[in-house]
Amino acid sequence: MDSISIIGMVSIITAGITIAVGSIAPALGEGRALAQALTAIAQQPDESPTITRTLFVGLAMIESTAIYCFVVALIIIFANPFWDFVAGG
Amino acid sequence: MDSISIIGMVSIITAGITIAVGSIAPALGEGRALAQALTAIAQQPDESPTITRTLFVGLAMIESTAIYCFVVALIIIFANPFWDFVAGG
Amino acid sequence: MDSISIIGMVSIITAGITIAVGSIAPALGEGRALAQALTAIAQQPDESPTITRTLFVGLAMIESTAIYCFVVALIIIFANPFWDFVAGG
Amino acid sequence: MDSISIIGMVSIITAGITIAVGSIAPALGEGRALAQALTAIAQQPDESPTITRTLFVGLAMIESTAIYCFVVALIIIFANPFWDFVAGG
Amino acid sequence: MDSISIIGMVSIITAGITIAVGSIAPALGEGRALAQALTAIAQQPDESPTITRTLFVGLAMIESTAIYCFVVALIIIFANPFWDFVAGG
Amino acid sequence: MDSISIIGMVSIITAGITIAVGSIAPALGEGRALAQALTAIAQQPDESPTITRTLFVGLAMIESTAIYCFVVALIIIFANPFWDFVAGG
Amino acid sequence: MDSISIIGMVSIITAGITIAVGSIAPALGEGRALAQALTAIAQQPDESPTITRTLFVGLAMIESTAIYCFVVALIIIFANPFWDFVAGG
Amino acid sequence: MDSISIIGMVSIITAGITIAVGSIAPALGEGRALAQALTAIAQQPDESPTITRTLFVGLAMIESTAIYCFVVALIIIFANPFWDFVAGG
Amino acid sequence: MDSISIIGMVSIITAGITIAVGSIAPALGEGRALAQALTAIAQQPDESPTITRTLFVGLAMIESTAIYCFVVALIIIFANPFWDFVAGG
Amino acid sequence: MDSISIIGMVSIITAGITIAVGSIAPALGEGRALAQALTAIAQQPDESPTITRTLFVGLAMIESTAIYCFVVALIIIFANPFWDFVAGG
Amino acid sequence: MDSISIIGMVSIITAGITIAVGSIAPALGEGRALAQALTAIAQQPDESPTITRTLFVGLAMIESTAIYCFVVALIIIFANPFWDFVAGG
Amino acid sequence: MDSISIIGMVSIITAGITIAVGSIAPALGEGRALAQALTAIAQQPDESPTITRTLFVGLAMIESTAIYCFVVALIIIFANPFWDFVAGG
Amino acid sequence: MDSISIIGMVSIITAGITIAVGSIAPALGEGRALAQALTAIAQQPDESPTITRTLFVGLAMIESTAIYCFVVALIIIFANPFWDFVAGG
Amino acid sequence: MDSISIIGMVSIITAGITIAVGSIAPALGEGRALAQALTAIAQQPDESPTITRTLFVGLAMIESTAIYCFVVALIIIFANPFWDFVAGG
Repeated sequence: MDSISIIGMVSIITAGITIAVGSIAPALGEGRALAQALTAIAQQPDESPTITRTLFVGLAMIESTAIYCFVVALIIIFANPFWDFVAGG
Repeated sequence: MDSISIIGMVSIITAGITIAVGSIAPALGEGRALAQALTAIAQQPDESPTITRTLFVGLAMIESTAIYCFVVALIIIFANPFWDFVAGG
Repeated sequence: MDSISIIGMVSIITAGITIAVGSIAPALGEGRALAQALTAIAQQPDESPTITRTLFVGLAMIESTAIYCFVVALIIIFANPFWDFVAGG
Repeated sequence: MDSISIIGMVSIITAGITIAVGSIAPALGEGRALAQALTAIAQQPDESPTITRTLFVGLAMIESTAIYCFVVALIIIFANPFWDFVAGG
Repeated sequence: MDSISIIGMVSIITAGITIAVGSIAPALGEGRALAQALTAIAQQPDESPTITRTLFVGLAMIESTAIYCFVVALIIIFANPFWDFVAGG
Repeated sequence: MDSISIIGMVSIITAGITIAVGSIAPALGEGRALAQALTAIAQQPDESPTITRTLFVGLAMIESTAIYCFVVALIIIFANPFWDFVAGG
Repeated sequence: MDSISIIGMVSIITAGITIAVGSIAPALGEGRALAQALTAIAQQPDESPTITRTLFVGLAMIESTAIYCFVVALIIIFANPFWDFVAGG
Repeated sequence: MDSISIIGMVSIITAGITIAVGSIAPALGEGRALAQALTAIAQQPDESPTITRTLFVGLAMIESTAIYCFVVALIIIFANPFWDFVAGG
Repeated sequence: MDSISIIGMVSIITAGITIAVGSIAPALGEGRALAQALTAIAQQPDESPTITRTLFVGLAMIESTAIYCFVVALIIIFANPFWDFVAGG
Repeated sequence: MDSISIIGMVSIITAGITIAVGSIAPALGEGRALAQALTAIAQQPDESPTITRTLFVGLAMIESTAIYCFVVALIIIFANPFWDFVAGG
Repeated sequence: MDSISIIGMVSIITAGITIAVGSIAPALGEGRALAQALTAIAQQPDESPTITRTLFVGLAMIESTAIYCFVVALIIIFANPFWDFVAGG
Repeated sequence: MDSISIIGMVSIITAGITIAVGSIAPALGEGRALAQALTAIAQQPDESPTITRTLFVGLAMIESTAIYCFVVALIIIFANPFWDFVAGG
Repeated sequence: MDSISIIGMVSIITAGITIAVGSIAPALGEGRALAQALTAIAQQPDESPTITRTLFVGLAMIESTAIYCFVVALIIIFANPFWDFVAGG
Repeated sequence: MDSISIIGMVSIITAGITIAVGSIAPALGEGRALAQALTAIAQQPDESPTITRTLFVGLAMIESTAIYCFVVALIIIFANPFWDFVAGG
């Protein structure tokens, strides 16, 4: 196998696995927080604005870890310095 | 194996695995949140509009991680720069 | 092994695994939500229309992740650009 | 190994694994929902028609993911385009 | 290895694994539903006809996933188109 | 390795693994149902005939999945069409 | 490796693994049922004959899955048709 | 590797693994039953003879699965027909 | 394979896996803390400022472990001393 | 590799793994039973002689599975018929 | 592969895996402690200074294990004696 | 590889893994028993001598399984009959 | 591969894995103890000095196992007798 | 690979893995015991001397299993008879 094949191959695999694996935990964590938020609203309807606001700030923070993975996946597909080196060489 | 075979092979495998693995956690997380929402409605029927609204916003957020994976899978199948390079070369 | 064999082989494997793995989480998530819905109906029979409606909207959302996988599996079997390239080449 | 052997081999393996793996989650999910339905009937005997009806609609929805896998397994065995290509070539 | 050996080998392995793996979840799911049915009968002896009827309809539905696997296993052993092709070729 | 060795080898391995793996879930499921039946009898001694009857019908249904595996294992050892083909060829 | 070595080797491995794996679930299931039986006796000492009788019938049923494995293991060691074929050939 | 080495090697490995794996579940199952027995004695000191008797009969039944494995391990070490064939050949 | 291919290949794989694996635990940990925070707010609405403040300081601390991984991933992609050595050599 | 190396190698590995794996479950099972015994003594100090006696008989029974493994490990190291055959041959 | 490639390759892989694996447990442990701290504050608002102080000292202690991993990862990338030896040799 | 290397290699690996794996379960089991003992003392301070005595006898019994592993590890390092054979041969 | 490469390679890998794996359990254990300490303070604010003191002594003891791993990792990197032998030879 | 490389390589790997794996369970077990001790102190402040004393004796016993692993790791690094044989030979 030549360099082009190797670098291309691992780039595709890595990009896919990075976003696939990287989306597991955020989805589970958000599901858990969301479930608990609904319980909290049912227990204290009067506090629903505070709960909802805290929920969405927290979800954004959790979502950030998924976005790190999405960014790295896109870098590997479209701005990959190793690919540029071998494909341009 | 030549480059065409290698790049094609890993593209197919990666696309399939990305969406397959990437749909595990959103489905579980949504199932959990949905289950809790139904419990919350049963506990506080008067708050069902608030609960339902919070639920669907949260589900959309969780669904987004599945969509990241779906996007990457489609990019790998239909807009794959590595494949374009080797198939066009 | 020539390109035809390789691309064909991985297409079959990937299509099968994608739908097999991709149906795990939706089935579990739907089972959980359904179970909780029945509990909720038993607790609040008067709210059963609201609960049932929320349940089916939520189930459709969860089912969507299984459908992403089904779509990708069928694309890989019947509209596979990599196969078209090597089989037509 | 020639193409016939390879394509045949992976078709058999994939068909078996697809239905085997694909039947795990529906069976578990249905078992859970059924178990909860029986509990709900015991708690609210008066609601048993509603519970039973919701249960069977839900079970059908869960069963659908098993049927996706069964469909793909049969396609791979009896309507496999890759096999037709190599066996007819 | 020639085609006969390969196709025969994977047919045997796949048939065994399909039914072995495919019987795990139905047995667990049925065990769970049965256990809950007995609890429900103990809680509401007056509802035992309804519970028993719902139980057996549900068990049949769960059993269906095991039967999908059994069908595929027998197809692979006794009506395998790939084997017929290579053994008759 | 010749065909005889290969087919014989995988037949032995598959027969053993099929029954070994296939007996895991029935044993666990039956253990669970049995444990719950004993609890139910302790809670409602007056219902012990109904409970016991439901238990044994259910156990027979669960046992059926173990028997599918046992049947396939014996078919593979004593009525294996692939072995007959290569051993008689 | 000649056929004798191969068939002998896999026979030994399979016999051991079959009984080793096959004894896991029955032992766990029996342990669970036994533990629950003791709890039930402690709760309802007056029902101990019924509980004990149901327990031993159930244990025998669970034990049967271990015995399937033991039977297959002994068949593989002492009445193995594949071994007889190659050792007698 | 000649037949002697192969058969000897797998005999040793299999004997060790059989007893090692085969002792996991009985030990766990017995530990669970024993733990529950002590709880039951603490709850109903007056029933301790019945509990103790049921316990030891049950433990013996669980122990039997460990003994199946021990028997197979010793057969493989000291009465191995495959070894006798190759070592005597 | 030459040094360029090897170093490039492992750099891509490692960068992707580092951020993918490294984002699992922070997302789960943050989801758990967030869920508990919402419960705490529902229990003690008067303490919501203290709870929210402690929550965000803690989330930042947990997020730091994800950032360690993100930093290492970017170093491996864009400031990799091993790549500079082989690509410049 | 000659027979001496092979038989020696697998004997060492198997002996170590047998006792290592074989000590997992007894230690866990004994820990569980011991923990429950202490709880039982705290609940019913007057029954501590009965509890302690039952505990030690049960622990001895659980310990027996560890001893089976220890015996097999020592047989493999010091009384190994396969080693005696090849080392003496 | 020459020494440069080998040492470089394993250095990159090890650095990434060390920090990725090493950040799992601290993030989970901190998430757990933080979640419990919020519960504690909600139970005893008057003790929130003590709880917060103990929390942050404990978090720092847990964080230290992540930092050990980060230090080792950076040593492997930037102060690697093995790399210096082979790259300078 | 000659016999010396092989036997030496597996001896080192086995010794390390034996004690490493073999210390998992005793440590967990002892931790569990110790934790329960402290709970029991807190519940029944008057019984602390009985509890402590039973605890230490039980810990010694659990510790014995770790010591079996330690003994086997030291035998493999310092009194290894297979090593003596090949090193002295 | 020559000795230098091999010894260097495994030293790097082992050092990283040792500290990465070795920091999992201490972080989890400390997180658990810390979480419980906060609960204990919330239950018994008057005992917070005793609880805090016991906590920190215990944390130091748990931390010691992480430090064993850190020590071994640093020995392998900077004071490795095997490396000194081959690099100096 | 010559003997020096092999023995050195496995010594390094084994030493690292032994202490890494061997520190998992003690840390978890100690964390559990410590957590329970803090709960016990909060429940029975008057018994804190007894609890603390029992705790530290027990922790020392658990720590001993980590120390067995540490001892074996150091023996493998600094007093390895297999290394002395091949390095001195």
